[in-house]
Amino acid sequence: MYKKIDHKDIEYLKSFIPEDRIIIKDDISHDYAHDELGGIESYPEVLIFVLSTLEVSKIMKYAYDNNIPVVPRGSGTDLVGAAVAIEGGIMICTKMMNRILELDENNLTVTVEPGVLLMQLQEYVEANNFMYPPDPGEKSATIGGNISTNAGGMRAVKYGVTRDYVRGLTVVLPDGTIEKFGGKIVKNSSGYDFKDLIIGSEGTLCIVTEAILKLIPLPGESVSMLLPFKDIKSAISAVPEIIKSKASLTAIEFMSLDTILSAQDFLGKKFPDTNYEAYILLTFDGNNKTQIEQEYSAVADLCISLGAIDGYFIDTDERKKSVWSARGAFLEAISASTDEMDECDVVVPKDKIADFILYTHEVSKKVDIRIPSFGHAGDGNLHIYICKDGMDEQTWERKLNEAFELLYAKAREYGGQVSGEHGIGYAKKKYLHKQLGDRQIEMMKGIKKVFDPKNDNLR
Amino acid sequence: MYKKIDHKDIEYLKSFIPEDRIIIKDDISHDYAHDELGGIESYPEVLIFVLSTLEVSKIMKYAYDNNIPVVPRGSGTDLVGAAVAIEGGIMICTKMMNRILELDENNLTVTVEPGVLLMQLQEYVEANNFMYPPDPGEKSATIGGNISTNAGGMRAVKYGVTRDYVRGLTVVLPDGTIEKFGGKIVKNSSGYDFKDLIIGSEGTLCIVTEAILKLIPLPGESVSMLLPFKDIKSAISAVPEIIKSKASLTAIEFMSLDTILSAQDFLGKKFPDTNYEAYILLTFDGNNKTQIEQEYSAVADLCISLGAIDGYFIDTDERKKSVWSARGAFLEAISASTDEMDECDVVVPKDKIADFILYTHEVSKKVDIRIPSFGHAGDGNLHIYICKDGMDEQTWERKLNEAFELLYAKAREYGGQVSGEHGIGYAKKKYLHKQLGDRQIEMMKGIKKVFDPKNDNLR
Repeated sequence: MYKKIDHKDIEYLKSFIPEDRIIIKDDISHDYAHDELGGIESYPEVLIFVLSTLEVSKIMKYAYDNNIPVVPRGSGTDLVGAAVAIEGGIMICTKMMNRILELDENNLTVTVEPGVLLMQLQEYVEANNFMYPPDPGEKSATIGGNISTNAGGMRAVKYGVTRDYVRGLTVVLPDGTIEKFGGKIVKNSSGYDFKDLIIGSEGTLCIVTEAILKLIPLPGESVSMLLPFKDIKSAISAVPEIIKSKASLTAIEFMSLDTILSAQDFLGKKFPDTNYEAYILLTFDGNNKTQIEQEYSAVADLCISLGAIDGYFIDTDERKKSVWSARGAFLEAISASTDEMDECDVVVPKDKIADFILYTHEVSKKVDIRIPSFGHAGDGNLHIYICKDGMDEQTWERKLNEAFELLYAKAREYGGQVSGEHGIGYAKKKYLHKQLGDRQIEMMKGIKKVFDPKNDNLR
Repeated sequence: MYKKIDHKDIEYLKSFIPEDRIIIKDDISHDYAHDELGGIESYPEVLIFVLSTLEVSKIMKYAYDNNIPVVPRGSGTDLVGAAVAIEGGIMICTKMMNRILELDENNLTVTVEPGVLLMQLQEYVEANNFMYPPDPGEKSATIGGNISTNAGGMRAVKYGVTRDYVRGLTVVLPDGTIEKFGGKIVKNSSGYDFKDLIIGSEGTLCIVTEAILKLIPLPGESVSMLLPFKDIKSAISAVPEIIKSKASLTAIEFMSLDTILSAQDFLGKKFPDTNYEAYILLTFDGNNKTQIEQEYSAVADLCISLGAIDGYFIDTDERKKSVWSARGAFLEAISASTDEMDECDVVVPKDKIADFILYTHEVSKKVDIRIPSFGHAGDGNLHIYICKDGMDEQTWERKLNEAFELLYAKAREYGGQVSGEHGIGYAKKKYLHKQLGDRQIEMMKGIKKVFDPKNDNLR
């Protein structure tokens, strides 16, 4: 059994954490009882804002020795309950550990604390003429959170995901031991790959307290193009053809008119065009303007031949702002359009994305529930939202479950996976189990026990 | 205790493996008792050439139930004893499982069996206008072996290593269970990352029987340039400056004159230039000829300013052949130059490579032993050979040990790792332990036990 926190525990924690960074029971804000989606609510007993690896180590050692559960948290922008203190105990919040420690121009790396925000990191490295390619929509997420979910984002088509940019990690193990994995090295064949095991493990194996990230030289040019199509089917059918053309695209995003209109309403800002049912947004980047121009005109021609009505360059500051702020607001806009929603973040092989989007429409009709979606058409990762729209609880639960079962079964059929970048957390355990089967879940539990030998005995 | 193989075991194995693919005891060729370096020798009791995942599964289940050790092997090109049957038992050789199963042009993947050779894969995908970027020097290694060591090679500077190109794996666990990890998907945040745990685990966790690999469109242009320098110091001092210039290079290889001369002797073929003490070989690739030309002329100018005597384009077929065949023969040429040798495959941060090469010369003097080296200057991975040159056994062992201790200690000091791409195998265990410490080695044993619960109890 986990131990409930008492006066003695708090006294110990206060012996090395100053008062203003330790919040106790009723003083804890409701913000820390849920994540961004708010699917589950539970308060920690103590909330600590840590400042160093050593503090995390001391807290973990004490919690381990005393059977107190701990949950790490960054900005709390996750959508699956991974950053919620479901068992109570201590919440370790890393958001004050937000220093950029070193930019190493010789090795093309940046070393950061886990609480650095994605937008803070991107701004810093770009000012130094470097690029940190992973680009999830949620710019106020922490890097620690991005590592814990192996966040992907829009530029994965060309540049890959967070995993591809983590060179080294400093972590605190459940019993407080500090270990380092990887380093400023490009190649490594020295023992089991703990670094990659930790990436995407959602804070269940250890707490990341420092990360060495790979950078690339900032491309000199970046151009986006918005292509309207008369209907959803013709838009998404164009995507596999664009991929097959082998053009070197940075991003291929799919947007339907209803999602764009929700964002327009939500932001009170006009989108450049709202005359058609579906849009594809393409981005190209590189150092050679002529080469980029050749590439995008070839892709534009291809898209016109595939039914695109037009092609708008997103070149003025005003257009950039209007398109990217709309793209950035999709999640919040859909959330604002309904009383409650749940999400499905499946990833399928790239050539199945068009079929999968059409399938969400079938499910919507079959279950009779609204299912707006948008997503990274170019890398096979879709964000699908199932909206309650005022239904009574019982109907909602039945329909939500029915829709989820259909969507995840189709993803499995297509050789996809439960989550492309949001993770499993609390909410998707059931579907992960179905996807991976008993043996792999058992192996995951075995690995958890290697890092955290007490885990099994406490519940 | 492991069980010795008896008549009953062989009878069972022959019940589903035809005679011509199962070789027993004294009939096993000496080739299968050692790897390419030959540092340790031990025969398996039975050698089986498998043809399918199902065969591997049946063999593994039987071996697991009967406590028979198994070692998987591809081409046997490794250098650290990982493919040697040190405990006897069954050797599963994958080299007849060498079919390319599917080229998926929509998802840019190729699906292969583990016994496909690197050269076979490269030729096949290039004929289809794709590129499989990992490019280790040993082209007759199998893809299964490349995955098991996370092989890197020459193009890692620009394209990364094997890990970056493995999308999905089918494996057989020690007890015979068949599992799949990953798939034809670009993003994944669905549970612990077994796929990356298996990559680089040197066949200790499971046997890879199928792999889905990522391809990229074949760059239209590729140019190499050979730059002679008056001495080793000026050549290697240029490397960090080339990296810092942010030029988009595919490969930066360092070659010293003595290594080139060994290769010349070995091959009986002339190298384009042998007037200077040290050479750097640069490769550029891409789709835009003008852009590549701009890049290499900028880098050539930089190199001249840093002391390069000249810059030869490796553009004619003859020159390409002479340079790349020399580069490909370095290991064999050094091996032919001495009666026995051992190797050190450290990786250090890129900006430490020049210092490390100079340090190998210091060690050579200090220990009074010949230490030729060559390597991937652009990614910090060096191949260092310590040569016996007719010493008596006792002196050789003392000097080898002394040199290794010095080299690995310096790599640790520089934030490097024991192996960049050759792996740990049997030969480097001691140095891995020193590098990672007790806790990480214990965790590795824990992970081995998750995959192979009987492991600990058998020795």
